[in-house]
Amino acid sequence: MTKDQNIKYLFEPQSIAVIGASNDKGKIGNAVISNIIKGGYKNKIFPINPKGGEIEGIKAYKSILDVPEEIDIACVTIPAKFVLESVKECAAKDVKYAILITSGFSEIGKIEEERKLVETAREKGMRILGPNVFGIFTAEASLNSTFAGSVIPSGNLGIITQSGALGLAMIGQATVGNVGLSAIVSVGNKSDVDEGDLLEYMITQDRTKVILIYMEGVHEGERLVETLKRASKIKPVVIIKSGRSTRGAMAAASHTGSLAGSDAVFDDIIKQCGALRAENMMEAFEWSKFLANNPLSAGENTVIITNGGGAGVMATDACEKYNVKLYDDFNHLKTIFSPATPEFGSTKNPIDITGQAKAEDYIKAFNAALHDPEIHSVIGVFCESSRFTNEDLDMAVEQNYRQFKAAGKPIVFGLLGGETVAEYTREARRKNIPVYEDVYAGVEALGAMYSYKRYAEEKEDEVADFKFDVAAVDNIVYNARKEGRSFLFANEGQDVMKIIGISVPKSIVATNIESAVRSAATIGYPVVMKVVSKDILHKSDAGGIALDLENEQEVISAYEAIMRNCRARMPRAVIEGVAVSEMVPYGTEMIVGARIDGSFGPIVMVGLGGIYVEIMKDVSFRAVPLGRREVMEMIKEIRSYPLLLGVRGEKTRDINALVDTIIKIGSVIRNCKGISDIEINPLILYEQGMGAMAVDVRIILSRAER
Amino acid sequence: MTKDQNIKYLFEPQSIAVIGASNDKGKIGNAVISNIIKGGYKNKIFPINPKGGEIEGIKAYKSILDVPEEIDIACVTIPAKFVLESVKECAAKDVKYAILITSGFSEIGKIEEERKLVETAREKGMRILGPNVFGIFTAEASLNSTFAGSVIPSGNLGIITQSGALGLAMIGQATVGNVGLSAIVSVGNKSDVDEGDLLEYMITQDRTKVILIYMEGVHEGERLVETLKRASKIKPVVIIKSGRSTRGAMAAASHTGSLAGSDAVFDDIIKQCGALRAENMMEAFEWSKFLANNPLSAGENTVIITNGGGAGVMATDACEKYNVKLYDDFNHLKTIFSPATPEFGSTKNPIDITGQAKAEDYIKAFNAALHDPEIHSVIGVFCESSRFTNEDLDMAVEQNYRQFKAAGKPIVFGLLGGETVAEYTREARRKNIPVYEDVYAGVEALGAMYSYKRYAEEKEDEVADFKFDVAAVDNIVYNARKEGRSFLFANEGQDVMKIIGISVPKSIVATNIESAVRSAATIGYPVVMKVVSKDILHKSDAGGIALDLENEQEVISAYEAIMRNCRARMPRAVIEGVAVSEMVPYGTEMIVGARIDGSFGPIVMVGLGGIYVEIMKDVSFRAVPLGRREVMEMIKEIRSYPLLLGVRGEKTRDINALVDTIIKIGSVIRNCKGISDIEINPLILYEQGMGAMAVDVRIILSRAER
Repeated sequence: MTKDQNIKYLFEPQSIAVIGASNDKGKIGNAVISNIIKGGYKNKIFPINPKGGEIEGIKAYKSILDVPEEIDIACVTIPAKFVLESVKECAAKDVKYAILITSGFSEIGKIEEERKLVETAREKGMRILGPNVFGIFTAEASLNSTFAGSVIPSGNLGIITQSGALGLAMIGQATVGNVGLSAIVSVGNKSDVDEGDLLEYMITQDRTKVILIYMEGVHEGERLVETLKRASKIKPVVIIKSGRSTRGAMAAASHTGSLAGSDAVFDDIIKQCGALRAENMMEAFEWSKFLANNPLSAGENTVIITNGGGAGVMATDACEKYNVKLYDDFNHLKTIFSPATPEFGSTKNPIDITGQAKAEDYIKAFNAALHDPEIHSVIGVFCESSRFTNEDLDMAVEQNYRQFKAAGKPIVFGLLGGETVAEYTREARRKNIPVYEDVYAGVEALGAMYSYKRYAEEKEDEVADFKFDVAAVDNIVYNARKEGRSFLFANEGQDVMKIIGISVPKSIVATNIESAVRSAATIGYPVVMKVVSKDILHKSDAGGIALDLENEQEVISAYEAIMRNCRARMPRAVIEGVAVSEMVPYGTEMIVGARIDGSFGPIVMVGLGGIYVEIMKDVSFRAVPLGRREVMEMIKEIRSYPLLLGVRGEKTRDINALVDTIIKIGSVIRNCKGISDIEINPLILYEQGMGAMAVDVRIILSRAER
Repeated sequence: MTKDQNIKYLFEPQSIAVIGASNDKGKIGNAVISNIIKGGYKNKIFPINPKGGEIEGIKAYKSILDVPEEIDIACVTIPAKFVLESVKECAAKDVKYAILITSGFSEIGKIEEERKLVETAREKGMRILGPNVFGIFTAEASLNSTFAGSVIPSGNLGIITQSGALGLAMIGQATVGNVGLSAIVSVGNKSDVDEGDLLEYMITQDRTKVILIYMEGVHEGERLVETLKRASKIKPVVIIKSGRSTRGAMAAASHTGSLAGSDAVFDDIIKQCGALRAENMMEAFEWSKFLANNPLSAGENTVIITNGGGAGVMATDACEKYNVKLYDDFNHLKTIFSPATPEFGSTKNPIDITGQAKAEDYIKAFNAALHDPEIHSVIGVFCESSRFTNEDLDMAVEQNYRQFKAAGKPIVFGLLGGETVAEYTREARRKNIPVYEDVYAGVEALGAMYSYKRYAEEKEDEVADFKFDVAAVDNIVYNARKEGRSFLFANEGQDVMKIIGISVPKSIVATNIESAVRSAATIGYPVVMKVVSKDILHKSDAGGIALDLENEQEVISAYEAIMRNCRARMPRAVIEGVAVSEMVPYGTEMIVGARIDGSFGPIVMVGLGGIYVEIMKDVSFRAVPLGRREVMEMIKEIRSYPLLLGVRGEKTRDINALVDTIIKIGSVIRNCKGISDIEINPLILYEQGMGAMAVDVRIILSRAER
């Protein structure tokens, strides 16, 4: 699916029809048209109802085909069994977007019925939002075509949600949290329009400052990745994806019909795209609100100003958790904060102005931070004390907040205390001052800002363009497929490696003792030998492997032993011979892979080999295409990364060779449609400058040509 | 420090003196006495002020020595420089507890001054709370001898806090959260009375249902462990320990003078004690409140009842995160929930009663759960919908809550929505109904309950009693110390292993080629050889190691090579010979250790050997003494644990032998006061029944006899 040039019509329609509009207050068709009117939509409204007449004071048409003007959007609220007919009519009328509020399609297993709706629409170039959505609110057009019960406050947050019920709850929470919306769209079953299309509009629209997405499953992941990457360079995108847990994913699949995919893959790829993943609704709203209302800091130097030592320690812990960097030029800190800090306090960041601090002491300390160019953001912590009243708090918090904001310095406040403080907090939050009842929540918001800032300000990573002989690889795949195989033989896998320039051990297949001996001499001792048979999957269990063979005599005995073992243990296996290979020097065993992910399309994976992958799950993922820096970030994410830098006096491993390997197999998986899965395990990684070697390569073919 | 028999006097004093009592409203001495009077303390109050007269309407004495009656508690609020004199007088007066509110001692480096206070008190058997505290509130005696500004609500939560400022904030938060306190005590510098003493009282006091501790550093960790374990069997203990991060620990050290110790050790040992570690104040209060007001469930079967699929998925994710077990007998679920679930809903847990659900549908579903004996706890999720008003919510939530509570079934509610829902939530929370604005928060509270329940109901683990020849180990230590060493030689370490029955490789030290050859023959080929020299720490760097020597010729060449290498690379090293040892068969390399921890005294540690420990930090800790089950739990906590169960067709490792080894070295560290550190690395672990072998043993001696 390519970029939708019409998407603007969905958000800024010149006319809207409501199919199933009704005067009956209990009906969704009434809620929708009432909301459109109440919301103050200025353009044309066409109620459609077979009875005609007037609906909510507007002339109704019996059929959309009767409407004498062009229609941009049609909201469909009639029962499921009539929807296909209605879609046909909308398409015939050249409607641009049909919003199918009606449910009862793929989410209850009626996949075929849903497919037909899309097919019908596409024939005429109409697009479908839904089915199973609550509609759309867009501040740009003052259009509220949802069936939500309440007035939706306008503002800067754009929301895309896969869950209708949560969408309605989000509208509510936005109101409570004093977060206005630029738009909210529910995508429901995503039969056609999905997050990628909607992002396209929200990226460029000025009104939207922050985008919040709730999703359960990914459609068209390749496009989503591309759009998200682009969006996150321009404005923050916060994503909640439920179905994190195995059981949660099952639940999501059962109620939306969408496959959740691996949460680990999702998590890594969302990070790659620069989006911020929130765990739950509260977190998502807190982040969104903070990001919409506060500047990005100019740098990473943060100070904590507190009147309580313990609370300062907790704020410090929170900074480590949320990756907020505490400024630690202690001399400079002393110079600027000493005047504000009493003798028993500390200027070591946390700046502890002690329990004796009054509002004016806070102001003094805040001012020092405000005017110092080395300090980029501030965490103000107040433990309730008899030293300040609500008015004092107001003086210390609100005024400073305004000044910091004006100066482009983010500041958050953690207020710990009783009724007085709680009351002040509620009030200040209503004014969108970033005040929190706990230091962790404030620091978390600041951490979200930094996380976004780091991505947004990073120079764009150039896609690593690796060219290779695609036809040669395709040819190998073609031949394997001709033989009815769904995988490549080991030697074919090695051939693929050779084509893309990844080193593999020298290897010759021998079919008798004499040729084994000759092959060993050609390759050079020591050698290893492995049985070759498509019937023997677990070579070592069958006794089909011999390592470290140092001379002719050992090759001969090993050959005999392998044959004896395999015949005894796998009597029915057809043995084609024995592969004689060079003995690969010791190095760090990695695993790298590339595959077509059900959600995201081509992805790559890296981890340390062996049990690191199996037991510790110490792997990371990225979507393809990608740049060298993205690959480096992926490698650095594995917990065992320090091993590659050399431990116990070892030299650094050839990380460049690892990056190259990943980019190469990423290119294969992207360009060779016949391949669905490549795994090199182990890839032996040598010292810097010494490269890497793919010892075992497993390549699986796509079920059908993609 | 043994158990304090007097601790009751601190919480239920018959008389209290306030030293530094004053009529001057600005002074702490006035705040304290006013609070005592306002709080309704019924027993005797003696203001002490050199001017005499009356203070707040009560006759004042010029000196505590003038008071004609017995005094249980003396609150000291005078400046630091007068405190020692005052402590002397209190001790002379046989006061039981001096509460030193005054600050300016060890927390600002005046350690010696603080030590003197304690010494002076102890001479007369008086105990000290503080210095640097805000006083004590105890509901049992209606005594509020703090300088907090507000009235403290009575209730069931007992709080112990190391931070005064946070303590005052906690009093405030308790009031806001409608959590009453049975007591709150600040321990300040913990010069004498600490958490252990205070727990002693709170454990047995009926009024206290939940104990909440805020701490920054651990004093007398051994006693704390013992007390916490006992406490957690009787009532939940929630602990916040700040200084989790490296920088936070530094900050804590600088403002309280307490060493934070390793957070990983703290975390593991708190788990061992059955206490619940909260990360921050909010979490701690939410857990405490839930635990104080709700029953423990009878079993682990939880159901989610929701009107929104997406919200149900999020609740499911939260259940995995907080280890709440979802009931999954789908047939039974279907039987009991079908009548409450419409056609398009789901009974598969989450029970999705769909967006059409009204209050009565919730009640129907809740009732089914309430009356079914297979279901032990419930998570109710409501997404705002036009289907219910506040009155409906009230009907669906509050009534059900009361019924579930009466039936001994915990239930939590997550209400997602706008103003209406927020308003209802605030109101319901005031009535202590466990209603949350997000599903995660509710599930988290339920998770805390389950975590506590699992510990409390588990049969107590018998301390594994391992007897060995302590005198023989002490003798080895004695000899090493006599030679001025602070560590044991490898062979001495092996001797210790032999004394406690841990296998070590056979090994003989040879001082020339002939004896090396003889030793190898005695031990049996293959052997390994390692240089013996106290000057060569890194044997392999010096070329002082040879492995897998299979015959006499190889032993001879290896001996020569080792001598040549070591002389070339370490020309000044005195070489005592070469240790010839049996070649240890391959197995799983573990690391086990025992040491005297600065905070907790004797502790043990386990992890997988090699880079697992160094890079992945995959280790776990427990305090000694401990039982076999505790050791098993510690082993199961390491992420690489599945390796010990056998992967890739390997057999299970001899986990029993690992448990034995840990218990044995735990016993050594506890009983042999001369040893501060034992590390076996690697301990090779073989297949089940084949035991373990300690290949390298490093033992460090205590600086002085403990």
